[in-house]
Amino acid sequence: MREITRGIMREAYLDNSATTRCFPEAAELMNKIYLEDYGNPSSMHHKGVEAEKYITEARRTLAQILKVREKNILFTSCGTESDNIAIIGGAMANCRKGRHLITTRIEHPAVLEAMKFLESQDFDVTYLPVDEKGIVSPESVEEAVREDTILVSVMHTNNEIGSVQPIEEIGKRIKRKNPSTLFHVDAVQGFGKARIYPAKWGIDLMAVSGHKIHAPKGIGFLYIGDKVKVRNLIFGGGQQNGMRSGTENVAGIAAMGLAAKMLYQDFDREIEKLYGLRELFIKEVGDIPEVQVNGPQGREGAPHIVSLTVPGVRAEVLLHALEDKGVYVSSGSACSSNRPHLSATLDAIRLPRPYMDSTIRISLSGMNTEEDVLQASSALHEVIPFLRKYTRH
Amino acid sequence: MREITRGIMREAYLDNSATTRCFPEAAELMNKIYLEDYGNPSSMHHKGVEAEKYITEARRTLAQILKVREKNILFTSCGTESDNIAIIGGAMANCRKGRHLITTRIEHPAVLEAMKFLESQDFDVTYLPVDEKGIVSPESVEEAVREDTILVSVMHTNNEIGSVQPIEEIGKRIKRKNPSTLFHVDAVQGFGKARIYPAKWGIDLMAVSGHKIHAPKGIGFLYIGDKVKVRNLIFGGGQQNGMRSGTENVAGIAAMGLAAKMLYQDFDREIEKLYGLRELFIKEVGDIPEVQVNGPQGREGAPHIVSLTVPGVRAEVLLHALEDKGVYVSSGSACSSNRPHLSATLDAIRLPRPYMDSTIRISLSGMNTEEDVLQASSALHEVIPFLRKYTRH
Repeated sequence: MREITRGIMREAYLDNSATTRCFPEAAELMNKIYLEDYGNPSSMHHKGVEAEKYITEARRTLAQILKVREKNILFTSCGTESDNIAIIGGAMANCRKGRHLITTRIEHPAVLEAMKFLESQDFDVTYLPVDEKGIVSPESVEEAVREDTILVSVMHTNNEIGSVQPIEEIGKRIKRKNPSTLFHVDAVQGFGKARIYPAKWGIDLMAVSGHKIHAPKGIGFLYIGDKVKVRNLIFGGGQQNGMRSGTENVAGIAAMGLAAKMLYQDFDREIEKLYGLRELFIKEVGDIPEVQVNGPQGREGAPHIVSLTVPGVRAEVLLHALEDKGVYVSSGSACSSNRPHLSATLDAIRLPRPYMDSTIRISLSGMNTEEDVLQASSALHEVIPFLRKYTRH
Repeated sequence: MREITRGIMREAYLDNSATTRCFPEAAELMNKIYLEDYGNPSSMHHKGVEAEKYITEARRTLAQILKVREKNILFTSCGTESDNIAIIGGAMANCRKGRHLITTRIEHPAVLEAMKFLESQDFDVTYLPVDEKGIVSPESVEEAVREDTILVSVMHTNNEIGSVQPIEEIGKRIKRKNPSTLFHVDAVQGFGKARIYPAKWGIDLMAVSGHKIHAPKGIGFLYIGDKVKVRNLIFGGGQQNGMRSGTENVAGIAAMGLAAKMLYQDFDREIEKLYGLRELFIKEVGDIPEVQVNGPQGREGAPHIVSLTVPGVRAEVLLHALEDKGVYVSSGSACSSNRPHLSATLDAIRLPRPYMDSTIRISLSGMNTEEDVLQASSALHEVIPFLRKYTRH
């Protein structure tokens, strides 16, 4: 019955920070590559050259968007691999200068777990706190930088509450205190939603994922600044100047380049639209008793993420109730939802413990419409009183 | 002019060991996933569950083909990553037992470069020779295994000359000499072309790549036997039981599962067809003066690879002359053709130095026809005398 109902129900996919639907144009391009332009970019013949062209074009697109050089773009298999190359590869290549690293308490597991691994290898990691809005103070970063600090990792946009860090200011202060300290930025949730200029902002390394920007899963890239030393994690045929061996994922690379191009072509209008949808949603759910939005409000935060606490209702129960209304959201961050645990981000912004289990994330993309947002808010109005009645006992 | 001519020319793609064209069925399945079933497998809602199902199904298919358990299959981003997790991850997880590893002189760079990295980390690696057919003797492997040997890595099918190693026999001898030594097999060229049963053959780790079996680039898997300890290389959200963090490449995984299923469904007939095409090609080029086939002959070798030495003609020149006739082949192995160097495999089978630069590889897939093979042999008959005339001076 449930399946049949779902078939005719309108769907509002509001879990875009977990993953996005591919742009049809990207899917079409990949299909062409799978069936026609399937050569190995390392092959010397025409079919190899054609495949290589897709890579070159994607590299050019991404470099233009970031205002960096084409050679600064290293293609990887995902955002997590990008973060790992930056942090583990960066630490391994620079460990003669020191063994101290700095990050924040609200990073994605791809950063935090890489840091934990480095701690097991006798590196020393400082975890900086954030304020109630989920913002780390640039002063605290500067203060923490020491002579033996080889790398600082601060995310651009938090995946759970949408807080946006003052990356440019942090970059300046790091370099002022210690010019040889590398600055890594996890921009998995920021790229495509903000203009980011690594070379100008003192960013040495920056991780991006394809599937958060309407390209497929299984592709990402890492910006690596000029003269930045990073040890590769994977060894083999020497593709991408030896920095990432393995036959390049041509279709994924081409799709990511195209998706980025599409996102940044009409950028301001898209972001305006997202903020509009976000504001509409927050207004619409504003009259549900006790409901609160976490993290930064208005234009301070990211345009696509709303962290909503619904006291008296367990997030998981709410998620499934919304699902039955065709509304897809997330409880906590999908990236680790297979291993339920208290969210480090919600803990870091000092959300009271009972609220942490009652928090859902609504995340938008340019594919969403007002109708999606209204469907979600109407579903929330409908299910919350019902769930409170039966779960508050 | 060249472009226009190519547009109407019949193409014979005979570089399938570099990469293959996707099965249209696999491309169609991926398109559906990109546009409809795009959920994040870690998401708790329906869209996540649907995505997870694709992964489970692919895992089941691959486990059935290999006659192993589903939990033995770890999805990776490519064959190179699979080899790296096996070798570097295997060495790191077992280094308390010893620091000695064994491999052969004809492995793929994904194995050889991983070994070189381990040497830089104070591991000790023995490189075993092969005979003129490119076969390593199981006795020599057994002899090389010591008490402190933690891992042996032997490829199933060589990518340049198609020699197939006596894997089952090697597995038996390793375990007899030292039951705690791990046995890794690089099966990137073997999977899909041979029946391989890791659990039965004493294989602990086995690397496979998707794009060699008509699935896309950017996907692979690693078989990991029960109780085999391997340290993960990438840290993050804990996907796949923490062994490979990063959102799974659902479309790539599903396509690889489907492609494997298709290949093994009508396996014997397909392999028969490949051997037929291979024999036809060797017969057809047999009357070109001085031309020689390297490596194993007949049914001893792989069904899809022919290494052909054409004395008096540089491989690269021959490759481009064939390309002008619509025939795509490889000079050496594509996996490292961006960095031209003498082939370790051809050197190991003691091919005379001047012959090494005159060797091309023809590699088949089930998509090839007799017409392709005849087109290639006819092109060779046509261009070789011409090239010899103008390059022998």
